[in-house]
Amino acid sequence: MDGSSNPVTQRPLRLGMVGGGRGSLIGGPHRLAARLDGNYVLCAGAFSSNAGTSKASGADLGIDPERCYGDFSEMAKAEAGREDGIEVVSIVTPNHLHAPAAKAFLAAGIHVICDKPLTASLDEAIALKGAVDASDKMFFLTHNYSAYAMVRQARQMVAAGELGEIRSVQVEYPSGWMTEAVEKTSNKQASWRTDPAQAGAGVIADIGTHAWHLARTVSGLQLEELSADLASLVEGRRVDDHAQVLLRFAGGARGILWVSGIALGPENGLRIRIFGSRGALEWAQMDPDALLQSPLGKPRQIIQRAAAGTSPNAERLSRIPAGHPEGYFEAFGNVYRDAAGAIRNKQAGQPSRLADPVYATVDDGVEGMHFIDACLASSASNAAWIDFKGKR
Amino acid sequence: MDGSSNPVTQRPLRLGMVGGGRGSLIGGPHRLAARLDGNYVLCAGAFSSNAGTSKASGADLGIDPERCYGDFSEMAKAEAGREDGIEVVSIVTPNHLHAPAAKAFLAAGIHVICDKPLTASLDEAIALKGAVDASDKMFFLTHNYSAYAMVRQARQMVAAGELGEIRSVQVEYPSGWMTEAVEKTSNKQASWRTDPAQAGAGVIADIGTHAWHLARTVSGLQLEELSADLASLVEGRRVDDHAQVLLRFAGGARGILWVSGIALGPENGLRIRIFGSRGALEWAQMDPDALLQSPLGKPRQIIQRAAAGTSPNAERLSRIPAGHPEGYFEAFGNVYRDAAGAIRNKQAGQPSRLADPVYATVDDGVEGMHFIDACLASSASNAAWIDFKGKR
Amino acid sequence: MDGSSNPVTQRPLRLGMVGGGRGSLIGGPHRLAARLDGNYVLCAGAFSSNAGTSKASGADLGIDPERCYGDFSEMAKAEAGREDGIEVVSIVTPNHLHAPAAKAFLAAGIHVICDKPLTASLDEAIALKGAVDASDKMFFLTHNYSAYAMVRQARQMVAAGELGEIRSVQVEYPSGWMTEAVEKTSNKQASWRTDPAQAGAGVIADIGTHAWHLARTVSGLQLEELSADLASLVEGRRVDDHAQVLLRFAGGARGILWVSGIALGPENGLRIRIFGSRGALEWAQMDPDALLQSPLGKPRQIIQRAAAGTSPNAERLSRIPAGHPEGYFEAFGNVYRDAAGAIRNKQAGQPSRLADPVYATVDDGVEGMHFIDACLASSASNAAWIDFKGKR
Amino acid sequence: MDGSSNPVTQRPLRLGMVGGGRGSLIGGPHRLAARLDGNYVLCAGAFSSNAGTSKASGADLGIDPERCYGDFSEMAKAEAGREDGIEVVSIVTPNHLHAPAAKAFLAAGIHVICDKPLTASLDEAIALKGAVDASDKMFFLTHNYSAYAMVRQARQMVAAGELGEIRSVQVEYPSGWMTEAVEKTSNKQASWRTDPAQAGAGVIADIGTHAWHLARTVSGLQLEELSADLASLVEGRRVDDHAQVLLRFAGGARGILWVSGIALGPENGLRIRIFGSRGALEWAQMDPDALLQSPLGKPRQIIQRAAAGTSPNAERLSRIPAGHPEGYFEAFGNVYRDAAGAIRNKQAGQPSRLADPVYATVDDGVEGMHFIDACLASSASNAAWIDFKGKR
Repeated sequence: MDGSSNPVTQRPLRLGMVGGGRGSLIGGPHRLAARLDGNYVLCAGAFSSNAGTSKASGADLGIDPERCYGDFSEMAKAEAGREDGIEVVSIVTPNHLHAPAAKAFLAAGIHVICDKPLTASLDEAIALKGAVDASDKMFFLTHNYSAYAMVRQARQMVAAGELGEIRSVQVEYPSGWMTEAVEKTSNKQASWRTDPAQAGAGVIADIGTHAWHLARTVSGLQLEELSADLASLVEGRRVDDHAQVLLRFAGGARGILWVSGIALGPENGLRIRIFGSRGALEWAQMDPDALLQSPLGKPRQIIQRAAAGTSPNAERLSRIPAGHPEGYFEAFGNVYRDAAGAIRNKQAGQPSRLADPVYATVDDGVEGMHFIDACLASSASNAAWIDFKGKR
Repeated sequence: MDGSSNPVTQRPLRLGMVGGGRGSLIGGPHRLAARLDGNYVLCAGAFSSNAGTSKASGADLGIDPERCYGDFSEMAKAEAGREDGIEVVSIVTPNHLHAPAAKAFLAAGIHVICDKPLTASLDEAIALKGAVDASDKMFFLTHNYSAYAMVRQARQMVAAGELGEIRSVQVEYPSGWMTEAVEKTSNKQASWRTDPAQAGAGVIADIGTHAWHLARTVSGLQLEELSADLASLVEGRRVDDHAQVLLRFAGGARGILWVSGIALGPENGLRIRIFGSRGALEWAQMDPDALLQSPLGKPRQIIQRAAAGTSPNAERLSRIPAGHPEGYFEAFGNVYRDAAGAIRNKQAGQPSRLADPVYATVDDGVEGMHFIDACLASSASNAAWIDFKGKR
Repeated sequence: MDGSSNPVTQRPLRLGMVGGGRGSLIGGPHRLAARLDGNYVLCAGAFSSNAGTSKASGADLGIDPERCYGDFSEMAKAEAGREDGIEVVSIVTPNHLHAPAAKAFLAAGIHVICDKPLTASLDEAIALKGAVDASDKMFFLTHNYSAYAMVRQARQMVAAGELGEIRSVQVEYPSGWMTEAVEKTSNKQASWRTDPAQAGAGVIADIGTHAWHLARTVSGLQLEELSADLASLVEGRRVDDHAQVLLRFAGGARGILWVSGIALGPENGLRIRIFGSRGALEWAQMDPDALLQSPLGKPRQIIQRAAAGTSPNAERLSRIPAGHPEGYFEAFGNVYRDAAGAIRNKQAGQPSRLADPVYATVDDGVEGMHFIDACLASSASNAAWIDFKGKR
Repeated sequence: MDGSSNPVTQRPLRLGMVGGGRGSLIGGPHRLAARLDGNYVLCAGAFSSNAGTSKASGADLGIDPERCYGDFSEMAKAEAGREDGIEVVSIVTPNHLHAPAAKAFLAAGIHVICDKPLTASLDEAIALKGAVDASDKMFFLTHNYSAYAMVRQARQMVAAGELGEIRSVQVEYPSGWMTEAVEKTSNKQASWRTDPAQAGAGVIADIGTHAWHLARTVSGLQLEELSADLASLVEGRRVDDHAQVLLRFAGGARGILWVSGIALGPENGLRIRIFGSRGALEWAQMDPDALLQSPLGKPRQIIQRAAAGTSPNAERLSRIPAGHPEGYFEAFGNVYRDAAGAIRNKQAGQPSRLADPVYATVDDGVEGMHFIDACLASSASNAAWIDFKGKR
């Protein structure tokens, strides 16, 4: 646990933001995550495609008005030209703008932190990967749920073989915010998230890709084929609000991915259970500091963040002793912390990629888009099996 | 709550048993459930097909040796001929013997209480239904999990429209007892439960049928089609030990049924979640006295057995004040209690069927066999969709 | 786990009951507990001091009318004179009748099972102990909560030194049924339980004695002194409805016992936590199949009834595999089962007392009355410390 | 919920820190809490009384070396003399240094944020209050646990009378970090926290004062008298590691405060339960986003942060939608956020005190010291009752 004394041995990185202006859901959490460990200072933004809204939003945040832009291309160019220009940008727009914005900043020599899913379509994703690979700059995808300390603990236990051969992975993300026809209200989130053109897809893109990345991160398994049954269960809805996906992994393991926007309950009930020949693990966002282990032939154990039995990587991601709950922002902050570490390594001319970093890469993002694409294709064919081998 | 003073205004019914001898898992619970409310007295049994084992098992139970039979046909005949002969028999054998035993007792004029699944094959099930329909005697199937007080509360809330239109049903029954190759040990349960000839199928028959009946009981929905991916994940296993089933219901609701024998954890983790347009419910066997309600736009509620907010039917099934946990045996006992009520009504020449009884019928049993059959057929066709309309 | 096949190798014991007629809360649970394992058959009763009510209550239960008495003395005499007379009686009256009833049956040569607390006063308790000691018959006190399988597991772990030196015991029993002035309604329970003459005291007698016996059973510690602050927090109430007691044990351990009738919540929230130099345990009636262990320097463990890590005694008290919840009645049934075992040993001329039986004795009952008495004395002296050494 | 877009309309406040250098437990959390919402920028510190350690610690944090002091008096003077000097200081030293440091900064015209307990002795506390009252500057005490959103929700529900008349308050803070003789290791925390001269007292000061402030904050009740039994349960320990306190409030309500350092378990298990004539509430740090309400005659409710049924003040303190867990740092950040609000009000010449702010005041701190003092006095007199009326 190195977090409590939180060493910040270098100056904060200069950060910009695209999107995240007034009315945004996710801009605030990104900014808070960036601030958490003192590794970034927000200096500029194209907080809205409306220049006035961008300036007003920037003013809320204490940003120099002349560095509040109405257009991300303009911002990339302008910031690249300043001596005190941003070194890294966070892209938190609707999905269809991720790729063009990211390309603009990479082209301007600025590192990119990008919200998920990678893009609104697989084609855009592949093109973006090309741009990232061709660039000298780094690209980080914020699959924040996979960055919880105890998720990383689970990943390490699976990788170390503590569960034996993995046989089943069950992952779910029920939420209920779309139970009513929220897109018919003035809810800005609901508006773009239910528009196929802006979002690409519904819950399978919005939270399905998180659930998938979590399953991938923890299990380490390769998906071989999937069968997806997506549905729009609220009248008039233009995207899927309920997705049920059967999974078959290399080696024979089976799984289910279930995500929903019409499932009232604890809200954001992301949960994973993974079963092997020698034990099982369960983790849920509702109680993120606990990892439940069911070893074959022994009593179940509650492995608790920062307490006995935790792995070095989980310790590394802890900021406060056990029993003091960490939560959503700390996990999100872990992504920003590791991104800062990688950027600084790069800036120092060292190997940039951390050992088992908690951020996702553009490759993860492309895989996630393949996943969405395969689910949409399967569902369009009455849940036919789609081959997923080599989709990465 | 009428149970605490538990009026038993009539003499106990004379009960016999087929199966349930030494080494049986389920014989004991059936006997305990029968004793719980004082409605039955066990008088006779064919506890094993081995006459000596049957007598020894009967002696354990204080049964008159001359009423311990080695053959159920002999028992049916002999008991029918006695003035003090049994009035009802419990059949707790491996699945493939349910039908022949049940027919023998019905033919002898003796009511039948039968463990699930109904039979080992759909054909047997249909034939048995014919026999029940042709008989003057009653047939009760022990889907004990659907008889928990708070499951009935859930059923009544759904039926009363408290959840609005039902959109999704998620049911699961993970257990881990088959994680190792238990069939290679001397475990008698494992032996017949993993033999296709005796069991018909694996977990889809053993616990899948329970999960299905629970989903049916609570939701009241008609299944239209299903896609099942069954697997045997332990080397050398001859039946499925892991089953994932996509469900599509009349009216458009979707669902998943997942059952497993290789899922280490709390064991017997039967759980149902049901989501509607105006609210959701969650119930799990691990905490059976609680029903979690998530009403749209209001805080979640914990409806507790025998406490505020419970329905008359749930009250009827309660035996002790709230906070004193009831469990598996009380639910099982509810089945036996309602069966006794129906038998006594019948004996008294009154309409026999109770209002919303907690026992299942032969029709439920046939539907359950259709469900197993459809899952096997789907899985054999690479999880193709199987039409389930009218399968009842 | 021997319960599932539940051998009953001997004929059931003939049981009578004093109290427990119509309107009784606890009569039903005693009868159910007695029936659970088939060890008893109820044959007679003085179910009420009103002969008509006793007969009517007996008729509800299918008891021969001529064995339904209006007076326990008459019953004791009559039953002692019958060839088929009862061998054991359950006393479930208000507290002040426990001693006279018990003495009558012991004098008639009939074993006694008695509800708690032992009596309504310490003097009666000591006199009753004298009668028991002078008798050839056995006396069992039904501290049913101490008979849960996982409570016995806890007791064995503490006794085996797995927690090291015990330093603190925290026990509580909050309930909320007295939040309103229930004694002003027609609630029969509320009436006698809030009458000092019939009950002796309020919650300290009703549930405090249960909590105390649980603490004693699990910890094995000797109490040296206590300081009790009892209160009547509802206007007009004549007995304590809230009791807070500081405990000091031999060896220096400290503890708190808190019981309440005005604490709304999960109801009957009996819970114990015990802390030692090498580990801690927690058990709560709300989840009785689980025992939470916190070993020093290791992850917490959930020891589950009938699963890995349970002791032989806990196994002995299990009736069904793990994950199928057992509850209140099974614990209560454990008391009746062990009492039957002891009675049969006695009848067979063998040493009667079982190894670590789950029933309490008259000595436990006297200690419980000393505890109540000391709490009342302390509270009457403004929570002065009362010496408890040798109070057994 | 205004947090997600987190407006920071004004420049960050310039913050200094006393204590919190290398090896400190609480310095990091204070800094993180200050950063969380972007309201502060750390500019200076006397991170250690050793000048070298202070500089090294400051370097870890990116602080200008010339603003890293080895002495807080020197720092107060130097910073007061700078144009860009700090406007507010956080004091996170061992307890006995709180008062001298706070006085130095107040005297220098700098606002003070101070860790709890207020001081190491009541005399120091009273003197410090004098200094605060005489100063033009503000003083904030960081009782961070009382700043959780759902704690404030509870407070508002009680104040609004939703529980009726309050009858009982049960508060506890078990932790196990002192189970072994940690003070004999090189653990810096253990060293000063178990030294009476530096800490004033043991767990009663360290976490008892948190528990007390939580009880006070939620219940609003005035304490009339208390009886405390403190103990040192580990051999050789110089301060209390286990404290049990009986509470009597104005109006007749009763309560228990129990805190421990030798109670292994979930760690930092702060929990409060409050019972009234019309309902009850329960909150625990282990699941801080949930507030459990038990209304008389209705099902229990789980009031969830940022979900249906939350009060405006709880909404104000939320940063992310329901189901995404907030935790320790967000609560701690709430204190820093409200302190910043008050300081800015003051700087703007407006009334400085917020409506129902989540920070504690010097008066709360003095009351907390009275509480510790009374507990020590009571315990020294064998748990005699100590009058607490007017102790504020």
